[in-house]
Amino acid sequence: MPTISRIEADDRRFELPAGAGSDAVHTDPQYGYAVTRLITEDGGHSGTGIAYTLGGGTNLVRDAVELLAAPLLGREIEELMAEFGGVQRSIAEHHQVRWLGPHKGVIHLALASITNACFDLWAKARDVPLWKLLLDLAPAEIVRLIDFSYLDEVLTADQAAAILRERMPTRPERESILADGYPGYDTSVGWFAYSDDRILENARRAVEAGFTAMKLKVGSPDPAHDIRRARLVREAVGDSVRIMVDANQAWSLPRALEVCAELAEINPYWVEEPTQPDDVLAHREIARAIAPVPVAVGEAVSNRVMWKNFLEAGAAGVVQADCTRLAGISEYLAVAILATKYPVKVIPHVGDMGQIHQHLVFFNHIALGHERLFLEYIPHLRDHFRFPAVVADGAYHLPREPGCSTDLTA
Amino acid sequence: MPTISRIEADDRRFELPAGAGSDAVHTDPQYGYAVTRLITEDGGHSGTGIAYTLGGGTNLVRDAVELLAAPLLGREIEELMAEFGGVQRSIAEHHQVRWLGPHKGVIHLALASITNACFDLWAKARDVPLWKLLLDLAPAEIVRLIDFSYLDEVLTADQAAAILRERMPTRPERESILADGYPGYDTSVGWFAYSDDRILENARRAVEAGFTAMKLKVGSPDPAHDIRRARLVREAVGDSVRIMVDANQAWSLPRALEVCAELAEINPYWVEEPTQPDDVLAHREIARAIAPVPVAVGEAVSNRVMWKNFLEAGAAGVVQADCTRLAGISEYLAVAILATKYPVKVIPHVGDMGQIHQHLVFFNHIALGHERLFLEYIPHLRDHFRFPAVVADGAYHLPREPGCSTDLTA
Repeated sequence: MPTISRIEADDRRFELPAGAGSDAVHTDPQYGYAVTRLITEDGGHSGTGIAYTLGGGTNLVRDAVELLAAPLLGREIEELMAEFGGVQRSIAEHHQVRWLGPHKGVIHLALASITNACFDLWAKARDVPLWKLLLDLAPAEIVRLIDFSYLDEVLTADQAAAILRERMPTRPERESILADGYPGYDTSVGWFAYSDDRILENARRAVEAGFTAMKLKVGSPDPAHDIRRARLVREAVGDSVRIMVDANQAWSLPRALEVCAELAEINPYWVEEPTQPDDVLAHREIARAIAPVPVAVGEAVSNRVMWKNFLEAGAAGVVQADCTRLAGISEYLAVAILATKYPVKVIPHVGDMGQIHQHLVFFNHIALGHERLFLEYIPHLRDHFRFPAVVADGAYHLPREPGCSTDLTA
Repeated sequence: MPTISRIEADDRRFELPAGAGSDAVHTDPQYGYAVTRLITEDGGHSGTGIAYTLGGGTNLVRDAVELLAAPLLGREIEELMAEFGGVQRSIAEHHQVRWLGPHKGVIHLALASITNACFDLWAKARDVPLWKLLLDLAPAEIVRLIDFSYLDEVLTADQAAAILRERMPTRPERESILADGYPGYDTSVGWFAYSDDRILENARRAVEAGFTAMKLKVGSPDPAHDIRRARLVREAVGDSVRIMVDANQAWSLPRALEVCAELAEINPYWVEEPTQPDDVLAHREIARAIAPVPVAVGEAVSNRVMWKNFLEAGAAGVVQADCTRLAGISEYLAVAILATKYPVKVIPHVGDMGQIHQHLVFFNHIALGHERLFLEYIPHLRDHFRFPAVVADGAYHLPREPGCSTDLTA
């Protein structure tokens, strides 16, 4: 039985091509991962977990992993995962460290990295890809992976198990997606620093490559710049392609209302991160103003409690929950199950470049019945993964390698 | 003119007497400070800033200070503080590091420490205590200390200046507090791990020492334990003393509603941190259920945007904003000014053991017209400060030393 005998933490940062990854707020990012590696006694297995960053300060998350992961030493992976919800909670509620959050920021990102490493090791130990591991678990096993604390009035473990059980009989209707692949959408079309010409060329190429949806970064100090570019892209790709606009928190509430009213003319499929991500009430006001176009948030929504507030308030229509922002796959599952109770779409943000989320969207659709939509696709780090997601004809193809597809090349 | 030529960051942790500082969630805390020291070229001045922790992971905040404080090097302090709102914003919005929050957790605590060091250096350079520095600033100078971004729809810089100006003519009516001192309340009475006997003895002693208000930790897994202890304290001190109960986030929403209904019999002056601090909607529900007893929150409310949500939602009646949790004195001022627009009391939590907040409550009352109430008092670290707050006859006496009273002994 694989027992964790060594834990390593790493700070990996990757330079991006000029302009790639840029948005109105994050002008010159690197992409980074705080990496957790769990190594077993027999040396036969290792689990790799990642939490995403924009480069700066990744060392802080790495050091937090070292601080928080110690309780995993000596644990056998099956026995650990049989009570992982409790393990999650005990780390998240570390009586001295939780002050630094709680449930947010550097320490929560560290818990994401640690948690994702546990799932990777577990899936490898069972010799299955994550999507299959999750689909094969009984509802009672799924809910034991999750810390439901502070969700009581909207979702208990028993209710979550019932949601999973209810959807069991109709699973076969949805399993064709395993063969079809899961559609993607191309975020790398419209980075903020790209020239108009480059964006138009990218947009045409994305359509040729089979994508039916793409994203444009907005949030310029000059709204006319945003509107002009959005019009250009709409004209270039036509009305059948979905265009999402993403302000990356650049706007105040009044500015968001003003610019969104103008952007309506290009019929965006969603408006993403219009303002500061803690601002549930501002998002609610924007959501009401731009309906039926939904507000999308998630890459900076810290935890399941914030999600409960966004969902209860009707402040988000697209749930971009990200297992490298939330406390890993466990808390992602909590949010994905919770979201079944609200009139929302679940379309993860891919801090992991889709490596883990490609598994999770198959589970979302088959086990939870979430609508088959599309998963974000960002190609810039693919050479750094040992098993990069296979995206062809505009779709993620089913990953076959055991684990969470998070092993990095040297 | 004092120019910052060296920046030091430190991780200080202090053991507490057995049981001191304990609550239902944080069972065995240390108290810690991530310390920023700004040292001037001429060696004549140094500014000390602190951000509070419960010990574990203070090194993460220290390292974040080192990462974020670099732009202060070479800056002259008067020139820096003349545009400090912009400086705050540029650090908070660091394009690569803000991902780790934004505006919360380890990086935000680091900004608290950095900011508080700037104010300490500034006040020392002017040879005045912080309260006098702030009271002597013109409204336009105060608002230039503050980053108002994301507050636009509730508070602009111009509106904040107007709030300060409006209260100018009546300041003399409130200045007697400088001679009288500012009342305190004793939190060290009822730590969670203390025995009943110890709490009763502490409560009697606190009354003898002149305190008219005190706090009891609740949030036990067994609510009967909380109720019994609350009754004991009420019987011991009588109806004229105010008793605050503090659950330190221990409860779910349903549990909070249930236990608060029972605690009503001892007529608590407030119920503090009933549940997870991001849960604005749960706090609103609790606030409605226990009215007219107010809900108090603040020690874990990350930033001004969360405060805007708490205030707009009517989810908090007591604003325990803490300048060692928020981004220092600057963001504290934003929240204190914002709070003038809502029917709430402003009673800071004292992660700084009251060292900085003793200055701020004089400013609150005189310049902002906030009701004169009482400031939390926790004595356990007083020997570690060079100029510990002087609390006698149940009141904080006006500090006279230049700066923010945050210099630590070696």
